[in-house]
Amino acid sequence: MNPSLPDIAFFHELANAAAKETLPRFRSAEDLAVSTKPKEGFRFDPVTEADRSAERVMRELIGRRYPAHSIMGEEYGTSGEGPYQWVLDPVDGTRPFLCGLPVWGTLIGLQYEGRAVMGMMSQPHTGERFWSDGTRAWASGPHAVAPLVTRKNIALDQAVLHTTSPEPIARHPAICFAALTEKTLMTRYGGECYAMAMLAAGRIDICVEFALQPYDIVALIPVIEQAGGVVTTLEGGRAEQGGAVVATGCPQLHQQVLAVLNGR
Amino acid sequence: MNPSLPDIAFFHELANAAAKETLPRFRSAEDLAVSTKPKEGFRFDPVTEADRSAERVMRELIGRRYPAHSIMGEEYGTSGEGPYQWVLDPVDGTRPFLCGLPVWGTLIGLQYEGRAVMGMMSQPHTGERFWSDGTRAWASGPHAVAPLVTRKNIALDQAVLHTTSPEPIARHPAICFAALTEKTLMTRYGGECYAMAMLAAGRIDICVEFALQPYDIVALIPVIEQAGGVVTTLEGGRAEQGGAVVATGCPQLHQQVLAVLNGR
Repeated sequence: MNPSLPDIAFFHELANAAAKETLPRFRSAEDLAVSTKPKEGFRFDPVTEADRSAERVMRELIGRRYPAHSIMGEEYGTSGEGPYQWVLDPVDGTRPFLCGLPVWGTLIGLQYEGRAVMGMMSQPHTGERFWSDGTRAWASGPHAVAPLVTRKNIALDQAVLHTTSPEPIARHPAICFAALTEKTLMTRYGGECYAMAMLAAGRIDICVEFALQPYDIVALIPVIEQAGGVVTTLEGGRAEQGGAVVATGCPQLHQQVLAVLNGR
Repeated sequence: MNPSLPDIAFFHELANAAAKETLPRFRSAEDLAVSTKPKEGFRFDPVTEADRSAERVMRELIGRRYPAHSIMGEEYGTSGEGPYQWVLDPVDGTRPFLCGLPVWGTLIGLQYEGRAVMGMMSQPHTGERFWSDGTRAWASGPHAVAPLVTRKNIALDQAVLHTTSPEPIARHPAICFAALTEKTLMTRYGGECYAMAMLAAGRIDICVEFALQPYDIVALIPVIEQAGGVVTTLEGGRAEQGGAVVATGCPQLHQQVLAVLNGR
């Protein structure tokens, strides 16, 4: 059975509500009061009141509109069950959020039977949103709404590579990241979910992340896929469960990238 | 003799003119046609028509208003001589510009007898500007104008560290960057001039760059200094000539950071 998908307007409603919680706290003194939670390999994993309050308002809206749907969120875990599950990261990129860098985003994903079908990344400081409506991917900003289309048919040695932090590279020696940097045009760092949006927009060709959680990637999978790109695990499987995740602009490049990263 | 400083309105006029050249090309197909020039340690150093045309319009405006002033620009070199020199980087961060990431900026600096006295960083996609008027530092954006003030009295182990790319670290083994990452709270990458603006804004505490040109830093020195921060070379001298440059939010932290980086 094909899923009955919600209107994209509801995603915008969720993003509006989240932005009311995150944007006033961005670069404010309040959000310098952070707590930390342990996470793989990072000494400091901040969570702020922006994370918590944005997730609360989104959960409340979803619960009212779709009481039969399940919700998984970074801060408050999983509630409910059934084929439809909303997957929320209220502030993906809490570190750039704390640093004042506008590359964080609110991630809102919808899975049907474990497969990501719709998603949105909202960056309220720049006023940009990147989303998939179930069929196509779109970007909106202060100036325009336009389709998102990945860059196709690019040679590996002309491709632009991104990973958020170089720190996990040494901890994952089985992933041949250095070989990939050698074979590509340039490597950029620090882009968080914004870099995945720029992959969907055809400005970055390859994104590699080493240890994602489901809420870091579910919302972005449909945006990238419906823009023409490919998102998989390092082994080439579906990426909804996170882990080491590779996104590229087209299937041909994807196969080359997986081969390099896997040392083949 | 104290220099007679121009009105900050002229910096805004320059930034407006540059934005008309850069912003329409940001994320456009045109600017994927790049040429490269060789630079230390990078295989790929892109220059785009946005760089060239933005520098041309700024040079023209300065030449008309201040014909006796010298101009140094990234793309067109140095013209004129005398105590006043404008130092221009039309697109600082051409790599993030090409990747669609809004952390590049137009840098407009003014030196008097070799010392940076006023400066502006303009980020037209977000609509933000960060500048010094000769006495104080300010930020403006879509929402407000506010003074820029660095974060003070922070312990080294609570400080946020930034460098644009990890790639130069291994090429500069005499600079103990890894020791600094170990002693600080977190390390961020990929911020270019935007990270220096966030240091002035009190969100980042330490910026380290390994091989800057004068046009990469002159505009930012007064913004950081007039926000309460410190910018020097690795040896602690004035940073107008570029090279390895360290910026911090306050003098006490600066001395600690220089000691760690110099292996003392």
